[in-house]
Amino acid sequence: MKNCLKALRENRPLIHNITNYVTVNDVANILLAASASPIMAQDSREVEEITSICGGLCINIGTLNEHSIPSMFLAGKKSNELGHPVLLDPVGVGASKLRTQTALDLIESCQFSVIRGNISEIKTLIHGNGNVKGVDADISDAVTEDNLDETVVYLKKYAKQLNSIIVVTGATDFVADAERCYVIHNGRREMGDITGTGCQLSALITALVVANQDRKLEAAATAVCMMGLAGEIGFSRLETEDGNSTYRNYIIDAIYNMNPEKLENGAKYEIL
Amino acid sequence: MKNCLKALRENRPLIHNITNYVTVNDVANILLAASASPIMAQDSREVEEITSICGGLCINIGTLNEHSIPSMFLAGKKSNELGHPVLLDPVGVGASKLRTQTALDLIESCQFSVIRGNISEIKTLIHGNGNVKGVDADISDAVTEDNLDETVVYLKKYAKQLNSIIVVTGATDFVADAERCYVIHNGRREMGDITGTGCQLSALITALVVANQDRKLEAAATAVCMMGLAGEIGFSRLETEDGNSTYRNYIIDAIYNMNPEKLENGAKYEIL
Amino acid sequence: MKNCLKALRENRPLIHNITNYVTVNDVANILLAASASPIMAQDSREVEEITSICGGLCINIGTLNEHSIPSMFLAGKKSNELGHPVLLDPVGVGASKLRTQTALDLIESCQFSVIRGNISEIKTLIHGNGNVKGVDADISDAVTEDNLDETVVYLKKYAKQLNSIIVVTGATDFVADAERCYVIHNGRREMGDITGTGCQLSALITALVVANQDRKLEAAATAVCMMGLAGEIGFSRLETEDGNSTYRNYIIDAIYNMNPEKLENGAKYEIL
Repeated sequence: MKNCLKALRENRPLIHNITNYVTVNDVANILLAASASPIMAQDSREVEEITSICGGLCINIGTLNEHSIPSMFLAGKKSNELGHPVLLDPVGVGASKLRTQTALDLIESCQFSVIRGNISEIKTLIHGNGNVKGVDADISDAVTEDNLDETVVYLKKYAKQLNSIIVVTGATDFVADAERCYVIHNGRREMGDITGTGCQLSALITALVVANQDRKLEAAATAVCMMGLAGEIGFSRLETEDGNSTYRNYIIDAIYNMNPEKLENGAKYEIL
Repeated sequence: MKNCLKALRENRPLIHNITNYVTVNDVANILLAASASPIMAQDSREVEEITSICGGLCINIGTLNEHSIPSMFLAGKKSNELGHPVLLDPVGVGASKLRTQTALDLIESCQFSVIRGNISEIKTLIHGNGNVKGVDADISDAVTEDNLDETVVYLKKYAKQLNSIIVVTGATDFVADAERCYVIHNGRREMGDITGTGCQLSALITALVVANQDRKLEAAATAVCMMGLAGEIGFSRLETEDGNSTYRNYIIDAIYNMNPEKLENGAKYEIL
Repeated sequence: MKNCLKALRENRPLIHNITNYVTVNDVANILLAASASPIMAQDSREVEEITSICGGLCINIGTLNEHSIPSMFLAGKKSNELGHPVLLDPVGVGASKLRTQTALDLIESCQFSVIRGNISEIKTLIHGNGNVKGVDADISDAVTEDNLDETVVYLKKYAKQLNSIIVVTGATDFVADAERCYVIHNGRREMGDITGTGCQLSALITALVVANQDRKLEAAATAVCMMGLAGEIGFSRLETEDGNSTYRNYIIDAIYNMNPEKLENGAKYEIL
């Protein structure tokens, strides 16, 4: 993981984001904190050109609309042509037919290097349905010690089917390809009290994968450990009167100050 | 008010926001700070479905446009059908014909549980005109000790006419239905130096009303006291070099840490 | 510069922003920090009315799209008719034909009081091409001690051609009209690690120019010094674990607390 982060700090990739307007500022700042450069563009007349000058593409459907959806397809296909890594964050998939159909169509039309969601979102993609309460995972779908091995098998199978890395975030995080699955124990529950930590993670994964294309699975797992560890470091700085807004700032700050040594010491994972 | 806040912390309602892109991130974070969940969606193809899985709807016209306007009507009507609380924040009404007409049409087409604005915005809605300088209340329309009783009568009358709770925020805040009016003395002038404290309050009112549908007026007044008190607590934490950006964070943090006891002790209001 | 800032604090102008959704919240907060009032509006049906009630207009093409582009032209022309100062921030010009063509067409159709970009963006405008990596200036285009005088000549010439003030920001900042060029040495490299410091500066320049229409060049230079000085003050407050997110807050805070004396003492510039 050390070397993945080093490569990102040196490579400083430009990342094209077609994303939601709720968390876009934090997404831009976390990319900058990680030494990447963000560019946001979603007019269909420019997305192919913009994605061409970037190293990778992060598609987030959080506030998808009739203008951004066609642009997601155009940019996704162009990035595929150019061999750029592309990530899909299917925010709220299952909450509306529009979200579900758009995400399924995107997966049909584009090759995603990585798909990241919560367990409920990923299940929706697999089953074409699911049980999503807004943008948070359903309790009934929670991963526990009892079903952890089963989850790993399930994710490897889906990863193989799509030839994508599947990232599932929750109390425990999973980063799987067809062969291996990182099971990650960093992070804190309170990160869920901040809007957009998932969106930020998706952008961070994109940047790490772009900078480490010969070791994409490790790069994606590195991003997940970094984000979780930043959540732990940020939380440790909070004082009695601080809440989720200050916590948001401290997490981005912790990514800014993350270095290979801190990451190596703080990352908690096993490979199954 | 204690019990209203307790109900919100337990109920954790999902709130659908059709809102502006200026303050949307803070709106999401304040809802999370208050134990509610935000979902932002405004494509006309999904807003009815999204609002159906939520507990309530907050419509904010701050950056209204040809796509979001039809969605406001669709979501508002659907929420009415389902009996969900719906709030209107008529940001900048009076500043353009588009804003004024949209707000008046929304009030004609949908039943709003709550309408929240500054005194100038509310006057515009009543008179179909007004004197709005951007998004701030006009000095000429300011409520003073001298015209306070008159204002209360005026708001109760309008509340009765629309069968809505009318919330007017300013140096003194008013939360009125046809019968009663909370006159609230929490908050600080410096909150006006932060973009979106009004938008945040509108979302917070929506969440409190959703969690307290048998006592909507008290719930709305609770939100106004909470926000004002958070403004006082946040302000007390500011150091010499802090300004409106740190203040923004501390207010959201104070909502995160608000509990029934603090609220009970800090709320300053009378019922007229 | 002292008097320019005093005039802004007293005048409190309302500024119309047609801007990108990435940094819009920080733009609004920095305008409030500077005692100006922001209004964001970009529906083509209202922009002429909105701009008419404002003192000036800031056009930022960071996330331009088929709806905002026509509104930029409408609002720009209306502001010209009314004699309001108008600023153009050609974010990412050169990165796509859409951005380049839109910026060039805007300059053809509207009279801009100020155009602000990095050196690469300004070169693109002049040459109709350039070498832009996303939204950051190209290293190859960097201004150094060796080519500083040449840059000044070049900018004055372009300023004369367009009858606009040209502001170029980078390690050294330039604020030029046909006759004079402020060369400014405030600011810190780390400001580039925050998304939107350029967008914020553009809004701040607009506000200062609106409040000082008899000394527009000095007003624009005042904004650049203020922003750079705020970057220095904010940076001096950072502790070991702070990063770009806390830095963002402290810069806006420093604008909030900026006064004529601090500015006079901290501004570092020469006029060539």
